[in-house]
Amino acid sequence: MTLKLYVDRMSQACREVIIFCKLNGINFEEVHIDLSKRQQLSPEYREINPIRQIPAIMDGRFKLSESHAILRYLACAFPRIADHWYPADLYKRAKVESVLDWQRTTFPRGPGSYVFYSVLGTTVGMPLNTKAAARTEKNLIASLALIESVWLQKKGRFLLGSDQPSIADLSLACEIMELEVLDDKDHERILGPFKRVLKWLDDTKNAMAPHFEEVQSTLSNYKEKVQKQRNAVGSKITQSGRKPVLQSKM
Amino acid sequence: MTLKLYVDRMSQACREVIIFCKLNGINFEEVHIDLSKRQQLSPEYREINPIRQIPAIMDGRFKLSESHAILRYLACAFPRIADHWYPADLYKRAKVESVLDWQRTTFPRGPGSYVFYSVLGTTVGMPLNTKAAARTEKNLIASLALIESVWLQKKGRFLLGSDQPSIADLSLACEIMELEVLDDKDHERILGPFKRVLKWLDDTKNAMAPHFEEVQSTLSNYKEKVQKQRNAVGSKITQSGRKPVLQSKM
Repeated sequence: MTLKLYVDRMSQACREVIIFCKLNGINFEEVHIDLSKRQQLSPEYREINPIRQIPAIMDGRFKLSESHAILRYLACAFPRIADHWYPADLYKRAKVESVLDWQRTTFPRGPGSYVFYSVLGTTVGMPLNTKAAARTEKNLIASLALIESVWLQKKGRFLLGSDQPSIADLSLACEIMELEVLDDKDHERILGPFKRVLKWLDDTKNAMAPHFEEVQSTLSNYKEKVQKQRNAVGSKITQSGRKPVLQSKM
Repeated sequence: MTLKLYVDRMSQACREVIIFCKLNGINFEEVHIDLSKRQQLSPEYREINPIRQIPAIMDGRFKLSESHAILRYLACAFPRIADHWYPADLYKRAKVESVLDWQRTTFPRGPGSYVFYSVLGTTVGMPLNTKAAARTEKNLIASLALIESVWLQKKGRFLLGSDQPSIADLSLACEIMELEVLDDKDHERILGPFKRVLKWLDDTKNAMAPHFEEVQSTLSNYKEKVQKQRNAVGSKITQSGRKPVLQSKM
């Protein structure tokens, strides 16, 4: 029976699972759960994942949610997955787990992230929250500085000084790639100072070509859409001579 | 060489690591890193954990941070740890991972938690943030409802229908026990409706006796201290006839 992935490529956590499958030749059926239509809340999807989040998978009769748990499972359940993804060695694996968990406990993400407050929130009808964006930018930059100075400190091209990527590289790179939706000026201001992070992102893209960029293209398309919206708003402002109202919800 | 734990029992993530060691007869030396003195930021501690968070461990020359990564490591690295803590079976382990990750992605915690905004924040000099507390209370209750209806839905006494606790029970119970610092009225209002969660917490305490309650006692002592502070503020109000000023930082 083919593995089913319940995903929306607009979600970063979904993209990492799709990329992993493609990279490792795991056959899967992609079941689109449209977040914009809130399909993750439907009674049908509840049968798949009562937590009502994506991604989720169904492997035969086995159901699983949470992207990191899914990546660990896939790395162990499918044959011939290269060891570097999720090393069997106790110490190497523990270090990969440490990065995965750090990403969850510390890296500002999802609805608490800079990208959310500065771009994504507005597209789901929330007012632009500049105050929250400023606060989360500080956390984001502190996190990027830690990646640069701790996880990318050693010789290898990948996190923890490895020569090959692990699921932690995949997941964290997908997370940071969310910044792609920012306009170029903000993107450069935030990521520009972190040369090692930029190089690592490039190395990760290359090591995972062509699947990484192909799956991430959903995000690039989205960026274009947002920019068109912005330009439209911009031209309206010029026409009316008024600035858009910036409101804070917090 | 004895395992070293770098911890402060005021931190929930530290308590879970200490409890795990005690429950499983793992010898350890407890190195106190005083959060109130910001010792996690000291140059000496940076040598142990450049991420500058606690808990961290040193096992021989091997250093590791992030409580979940530490629990996984300890469960695998030390001999004779019962399988139920972190099952070797692929499917059982994946489900435990799913709960651990859900706790990190969804359960409102640490500086984004109800407890933080309603109690802990004030003790580190932040003004009481009633607006943020109300918002996080909603998320907290939604999370408790999911634990009740999804993770505790099956027959067994523990999460995922197990008869014995896993590291996910330990970690999530420690997280929820943070609510102990609330005054009794708030505690009852929030946890009271979740009978299965309350029973599971009791079962967890009992299964982990006496270590669970012994290590959690730091929190009970803290609660007493906070209540004394509150009463002192209360009597001052009575004396001056004024209410304390509630400010929001957000």
